[in-house]
Amino acid sequence: MNEITLNPIGVVRSPHTAAERTPIQPHFAKGIAGTAQVDPAYEEGLADLDGFSNIWLVYIFDRVSAPKLTVKPFLEDTPHGVFATRAPNRPNPIGLSLVRLVRREGCVLHLEDVDVLDGTPLLDIKPYVGRFDTAEQARCGWLDKIDDATARQRGRRGYRD
Amino acid sequence: MNEITLNPIGVVRSPHTAAERTPIQPHFAKGIAGTAQVDPAYEEGLADLDGFSNIWLVYIFDRVSAPKLTVKPFLEDTPHGVFATRAPNRPNPIGLSLVRLVRREGCVLHLEDVDVLDGTPLLDIKPYVGRFDTAEQARCGWLDKIDDATARQRGRRGYRD
Repeated sequence: MNEITLNPIGVVRSPHTAAERTPIQPHFAKGIAGTAQVDPAYEEGLADLDGFSNIWLVYIFDRVSAPKLTVKPFLEDTPHGVFATRAPNRPNPIGLSLVRLVRREGCVLHLEDVDVLDGTPLLDIKPYVGRFDTAEQARCGWLDKIDDATARQRGRRGYRD
Repeated sequence: MNEITLNPIGVVRSPHTAAERTPIQPHFAKGIAGTAQVDPAYEEGLADLDGFSNIWLVYIFDRVSAPKLTVKPFLEDTPHGVFATRAPNRPNPIGLSLVRLVRREGCVLHLEDVDVLDGTPLLDIKPYVGRFDTAEQARCGWLDKIDDATARQRGRRGYRD
């Protein structure tokens, strides 16, 4: 299959400068502010986005080591196939985060619940649509066995604790 | 910012061979079966994935025309900024679909609710995790104004109607 070449549309700015102290999901980064700074060439594409309270950021984990097919996830010490986790060192290191959109100022999106490293290249922005993006009564494999307190403690990775 | 080069990990197989008759979201493709055929080189990475009832497919819209910054989405005739829609002709044509994982057989994932064109290059697979991927009481902009019947009628795009 052919290689795919993509060009970032912007960059994520956040207080997270060290991967090992960055919360692993927006769920563990409640209230942490950041911005998506979109290249002005794409500003027209942001029209009407501010009607949405939550958006998906699609980005590149640009500071990961080599991909691994078996990983120990952040929330558990048991190894799993990388596609059964959200770990960053994936064959294609694409990250997906559901963040809160607080407001838009031109090309700058003011965000909360940001779990993304400062300077991360942004590939796409999509509106969160509850009708499309929610699965009812989903089984969540090994993650169903992690209780909320453990998840929070490990998921925040020391941020502001 | 630097170009990003990615290599597909596999391909999506589905009954959808014409874009104009492909449902626009899994929500409008209930029960439609397909598979994700992952390159055997990545099979190890699929371990434990079958504990999850729902997974995200991250893929490339490989048969779109040139990107547009303002689009008329499938569900409405009013134009919107492309980032406020899930339309395929985006600056980086990355697709995101939440499908049901019925079972895994080696490198083949048997799926339902497939809204992806046959032959689509697959970039990544992530488990759906309700804790991470749900926003409570989300405002969904222009999409909140589209009633369910209209959405279904337009979203299925004639498939099996």
